Amino acid sequence: MNSSSSYSITQITMWWPSVVVVLLLQISNLVASQSIINTLPGFTGELPFKLETGYIGVGELDEVQLFYYFIESERSPKDDPLVLWLTGGPGCSALSGLLYEIGPLTFNYANSSGNKPTLELNPYSWTKVANIIFLDSPVGTGFSYATTWEAYNVNDTSSAAQTYEFLRKWVLAHSMFLSNPLYIAGDSYSGIPVPIVVQEVSNGNEIGHLPPLILKGLVLGNPLTHRIFDLDARLKFAHRMALISDRLYESTKRNCKGEYIYPDPSNAKCIEDLQVVEECVSNIFDNQILEPNCATQSPKPNKLREWSVLGDDFIDIHTSTPQVPGPWCRNYNYLYSYVWANDKTVQEALHIREGTKTEWDRCNKSLAYTENVITSIDYHRNLTKKDLRALVYSGDHDMTIPYVGTEEWIETLDLSIEDDWRPWFVDGQIAGYVTIFTEEKYSLTFTTIKGGGHTAPEYKPKECLAMIDRWFSYYFL
Amino acid sequence: MNSSSSYSITQITMWWPSVVVVLLLQISNLVASQSIINTLPGFTGELPFKLETGYIGVGELDEVQLFYYFIESERSPKDDPLVLWLTGGPGCSALSGLLYEIGPLTFNYANSSGNKPTLELNPYSWTKVANIIFLDSPVGTGFSYATTWEAYNVNDTSSAAQTYEFLRKWVLAHSMFLSNPLYIAGDSYSGIPVPIVVQEVSNGNEIGHLPPLILKGLVLGNPLTHRIFDLDARLKFAHRMALISDRLYESTKRNCKGEYIYPDPSNAKCIEDLQVVEECVSNIFDNQILEPNCATQSPKPNKLREWSVLGDDFIDIHTSTPQVPGPWCRNYNYLYSYVWANDKTVQEALHIREGTKTEWDRCNKSLAYTENVITSIDYHRNLTKKDLRALVYSGDHDMTIPYVGTEEWIETLDLSIEDDWRPWFVDGQIAGYVTIFTEEKYSLTFTTIKGGGHTAPEYKPKECLAMIDRWFSYYFL
Repeated sequence: MNSSSSYSITQITMWWPSVVVVLLLQISNLVASQSIINTLPGFTGELPFKLETGYIGVGELDEVQLFYYFIESERSPKDDPLVLWLTGGPGCSALSGLLYEIGPLTFNYANSSGNKPTLELNPYSWTKVANIIFLDSPVGTGFSYATTWEAYNVNDTSSAAQTYEFLRKWVLAHSMFLSNPLYIAGDSYSGIPVPIVVQEVSNGNEIGHLPPLILKGLVLGNPLTHRIFDLDARLKFAHRMALISDRLYESTKRNCKGEYIYPDPSNAKCIEDLQVVEECVSNIFDNQILEPNCATQSPKPNKLREWSVLGDDFIDIHTSTPQVPGPWCRNYNYLYSYVWANDKTVQEALHIREGTKTEWDRCNKSLAYTENVITSIDYHRNLTKKDLRALVYSGDHDMTIPYVGTEEWIETLDLSIEDDWRPWFVDGQIAGYVTIFTEEKYSLTFTTIKGGGHTAPEYKPKECLAMIDRWFSYYFL
Repeated sequence: MNSSSSYSITQITMWWPSVVVVLLLQISNLVASQSIINTLPGFTGELPFKLETGYIGVGELDEVQLFYYFIESERSPKDDPLVLWLTGGPGCSALSGLLYEIGPLTFNYANSSGNKPTLELNPYSWTKVANIIFLDSPVGTGFSYATTWEAYNVNDTSSAAQTYEFLRKWVLAHSMFLSNPLYIAGDSYSGIPVPIVVQEVSNGNEIGHLPPLILKGLVLGNPLTHRIFDLDARLKFAHRMALISDRLYESTKRNCKGEYIYPDPSNAKCIEDLQVVEECVSNIFDNQILEPNCATQSPKPNKLREWSVLGDDFIDIHTSTPQVPGPWCRNYNYLYSYVWANDKTVQEALHIREGTKTEWDRCNKSLAYTENVITSIDYHRNLTKKDLRALVYSGDHDMTIPYVGTEEWIETLDLSIEDDWRPWFVDGQIAGYVTIFTEEKYSLTFTTIKGGGHTAPEYKPKECLAMIDRWFSYYFL
């Protein structure tokens, strides 16, 4: 399969000696900030995997310092894919993706206390089968920072260009990964930047940017792809999942004419219907509709009509504790990340540069970030003309970015169906349903994760590891 | 609210002395077989509730001996409703409903072993708020038996008549419950007999059968109401729950013209579509689509096209153990009922008549029973003309009798909507959505149990107890 990549190992070794000196000069400050981390507060003993953290400066004067966590594949680093993972938001830290979704460490909820989080190994880490760079992007996210105020003003496209610049520099500084197949991946809001970064890499390769990256494709989980259509799809999803009635669904469709996010404010019937819908769903935990809803944000966001994925952990970490009465809430577990990542000893262990960040946020809601791309669908359409592969997975119980909307935009790509919607299995149980679309050299695998939520690996870790392992290996799901 | 009942206490006490002698003669053999059970094997100490078991003979020569478990309300027996509970099947024992759904005892799964089941209290027993008669009906179910072979040949209507006869005799023998509000209740297959029994009671009251029963209404959980439409609804449900694709759903609807259970066998396109549907759903655990599927029945039933609620515990209790590798299966817990109820000491404790039953089955699949009523919808329509109330609840993750089909037949009753689909709450969380329909003196409450399965109280015990408590008390859900 590797023979289909644009660049062979021979080509890479050909140019390598001639440019290495110049490029290494460019990344001299980067090399200095790479650190191998052997132990971490909260985890007993040495880390049983190779963790590196570091900063890479991008921009003309390296004024944007992007922080990353790199974890080598626990299987075969030189053969396994290299994955750049962007957590959503925008503004959600790479550490959140690492600790709660696909990384090798996670909080040991049972053995943690409010001020003493402990870590345990995640047996379903994607680092079992891939080398993963968890990147704090865009600037302002996690431990990434800028050296000037102006440099914080980025948008979807400029930030994606910075991510591409980061990636080239990172690969240069880690030449052992020059020939690994590369995937750009992420979930939720990353549905906007990931296809843009893939386009950047593809364009860069075509015009001869160095180093050539062995771009194979992209991976997206419950991705935001269209800022209106994906959110409009919440109505259909709420109906399917028995959160609103047939009558209300039909009436709302009829009265609002498909526009639920930006309805005509003078359309009284539509506004009235949407209010009733809102009453039905306002206490639903959007990210997995069957789990308890524990947001304490006030006033409540409009669930149907706002991009509110970040709202769900708007909890006061000083007053909330996991010991409050009532049902267990997934949010409680998020608290530990605030305690842990803001701990001085942890930041020292991670080699965070002192004074660069006043407070670490799981999801930074005050980014100076402009969301200038309404939809990434055109990027996807562009990519279908290339020799690439895409995996799009949807936790099917997520109302934040419902699978029904994802299904719809994929259909608009008008690809051929190679393998029509069929179940796939983990431990003999249906883990989800997969459809494979193709178009010449391009292929897109769309799969649901049965019972999964918005960040599917957080809810169905075993199934999601099986999915990514099989897909990276070109197996059938 | 009690003032709306057809019979007042005064009326009852008026006729009581005059008929009591005659009637008591009729039930003389019954009285002898009532037993108060204070202890049970597997449960430590005295039962903290009042359990009575017994037989009541029905038919001309009492040739049908119906076994029951009666548990007094743990709150206020004289004020709380009297509920007759029929477990589905047909053929599923009352004990199954008692131990796995709404009774005060349940297996302590963690502390049981294959040959030594232990029991623990169910904090969400419906006996917290109601007096419940769990009846082994129709004859052949659980510990009910007949004294002649012919007497086993019953059908939906004749069995319902026997249930009514049972009820009258039972109430006569328990005169303290003569004035309690009475509800006929059950789930799954009981959707057929329960409305028929209600009709029998209503008719009997009207023509002056004694004793008058203070019939208030009926309760049905994921009920089978129409043997074709309820099963056809599985297709729509599978589509909503992301088990089949939009394309396949539309194609199947178009090709099969709405007939999925009994498709035209010469309609090749339809048959082909149904085969693909079957491939998508055949490994789904119908009773709760998100739980592991562990049926080991071979060959597999056709999930879409057969009435297969009974199939799901077709496991060999001699070879299956809860310790087999793989995911936990709800079925494992069912095994304990076979071990427990077939234990000689248990049967002695329950005062089972020796030699009447060779083996107790959780669900007897070899009943000599004719399913002669295709739909109970006409009974429901009839009942809407009366001073009655109905509660229909649907675990919304059940594909055996999906909520979408239930929603549909309720709509055909053309009732007025008093309270349109809105969420209701338990512990501040949405427990489901409720709609209240009315028609003069009749009211029907339809509610979903969010995340619930086929026998909803088995999956969402706390929510279902809150539901039934509020509904019995005429509160808003």
